[in-house]
Amino acid sequence: MTPSTGPAEPGPAQPPAVSPEQSAREQALVDEVVASFAGAESPRLRQLMQALTRHLHAFVREARLTEEEWSAAVEFLTAAGHITDDKRQEFILLSDVLGLSMQTIAVNNEAVGDATEATVFGPFFVEGAPRIEQGGDLAFGAKGQPCWVEGRVSDTSGRPIAGARIDVWEADADGCYDVQYGDDRTAARGQLFTDEDGGYRFWAVTPTPYPIPHDGPVGRMLQAVGRSPMRAAHLHFMVAAEGHRTLVTHIFVAGDEYLTHDSVFGVKESLVRDFAVQPPGTPTPDGRELGDTEWARTRFDVVLATVPASPH
Amino acid sequence: MTPSTGPAEPGPAQPPAVSPEQSAREQALVDEVVASFAGAESPRLRQLMQALTRHLHAFVREARLTEEEWSAAVEFLTAAGHITDDKRQEFILLSDVLGLSMQTIAVNNEAVGDATEATVFGPFFVEGAPRIEQGGDLAFGAKGQPCWVEGRVSDTSGRPIAGARIDVWEADADGCYDVQYGDDRTAARGQLFTDEDGGYRFWAVTPTPYPIPHDGPVGRMLQAVGRSPMRAAHLHFMVAAEGHRTLVTHIFVAGDEYLTHDSVFGVKESLVRDFAVQPPGTPTPDGRELGDTEWARTRFDVVLATVPASPH
Repeated sequence: MTPSTGPAEPGPAQPPAVSPEQSAREQALVDEVVASFAGAESPRLRQLMQALTRHLHAFVREARLTEEEWSAAVEFLTAAGHITDDKRQEFILLSDVLGLSMQTIAVNNEAVGDATEATVFGPFFVEGAPRIEQGGDLAFGAKGQPCWVEGRVSDTSGRPIAGARIDVWEADADGCYDVQYGDDRTAARGQLFTDEDGGYRFWAVTPTPYPIPHDGPVGRMLQAVGRSPMRAAHLHFMVAAEGHRTLVTHIFVAGDEYLTHDSVFGVKESLVRDFAVQPPGTPTPDGRELGDTEWARTRFDVVLATVPASPH
Repeated sequence: MTPSTGPAEPGPAQPPAVSPEQSAREQALVDEVVASFAGAESPRLRQLMQALTRHLHAFVREARLTEEEWSAAVEFLTAAGHITDDKRQEFILLSDVLGLSMQTIAVNNEAVGDATEATVFGPFFVEGAPRIEQGGDLAFGAKGQPCWVEGRVSDTSGRPIAGARIDVWEADADGCYDVQYGDDRTAARGQLFTDEDGGYRFWAVTPTPYPIPHDGPVGRMLQAVGRSPMRAAHLHFMVAAEGHRTLVTHIFVAGDEYLTHDSVFGVKESLVRDFAVQPPGTPTPDGRELGDTEWARTRFDVVLATVPASPH
């Protein structure tokens, strides 16, 4: 840095003190907007719009948002809208990097006993992924280190849940999901069901870190604030069983450098797993022959919360 | 309404009480996201992103936003982005109907003595509108009742401001601005300068109420909450003079039914003016011959705030 020869650079501008009259005018406007939603037919919509109004006005007033900053916000949202299409969802990315996706998940998945914690769903789940058998390989040719994953699904009382449906999906070693290649391939995703003891096991690839799409307005914002677009390496799970709360989660790789600054705030300590690397030649659990290929193994036991009895 | 024969319909769902542990988890996420912006090079950008994060998370937590509602919000923003183009700006409409445009104006235009109040700029101003002389007609053929507008521009000490630039623009009697016709016409807009005594006078058309564009997601939202898309009738002014704060405002028509529920919250009582209708044959102020046409007249004296001396 070049030392400044002028006066000390001023710090961030402090908002000027607001007079009681000015504050009353601002509050009167908030009240007027809140009242405008009073006629909504849906009580829930009314509640949401009134709460949104109060919190957004509180932001504008506290930040003393300038008219130029307001214009920049309009331009940002416009650019986000224009880059969004069937395959790219910039508003979900925006929600993700502001932690709002994760907060919504936190609000809707309160802790129940030792039930496994949820995390972000992400935009890469696909309905109708190929069914695999126990011990099958859901990589389907995806590039990456072979990884054996096994575990058991149970309820919060420790009883095994047989026939639970498990969906798994992940990026390949180049950091891309199959749907990002645009060639209709299906790889690194699959569905299987737990056995009578609640157990499951399959081959996948060891997850690696990758960036969220960062060539749009969200990426430019991350750059402007000095944040990385990288996600900590993870393997997505969705686990569903009748009478239980469907779990959407990931497991993360112990030691990954992005665990502490995942771009979408998805990491929970309880979801970090050891992915133990096995030297070439180590016998595999199912006798699969991997030659001189290094492989990894991990274990993820899942606890599903019971759906609470309906109050009606 | 058909009387219900079942049990009383439950009111809006009350959010379940949140345990201290759950609340702590939610707050920890807010703190993590706020901290992620600590490295922003611009202190103002850091301040804005941190404040936005706190207020948006407060909304999600207070409303206990469901995952379905979160998805609906993403779909709403996506639709707003897709309908927005060079001529249609759905995000400005959204800001307008949430009162955020008006709040931003309130924050940036604090009252100074008896300076004229500001209101929303709107999307229909055009640079380089035709210059008219004192007493000229800026209707340029726009449909509507002829309206004589006169007034005086002064500072907060009552001293007239000569040479102040006045831009005026408005919708025609069909509720459309020239730019909405898509045929490159210029009508119902013009620019003039005050005379030596700060005075100005011109012909326009009497403003009438019109709806904001309501065939998109913002219009559907207004309908869902039982709000009208109508704007109270108004005539836009922008008044600029060196050494003074530029004023962006409207005047409204006394007696207009939409004064109490303008869709963008732009009405201020101090900006409502009598538009006195003159029977056909009433002599005009400048001797213009209007035959058997009814016309109106109004007066708008403008007081500009002085730009405060820079602290540097």
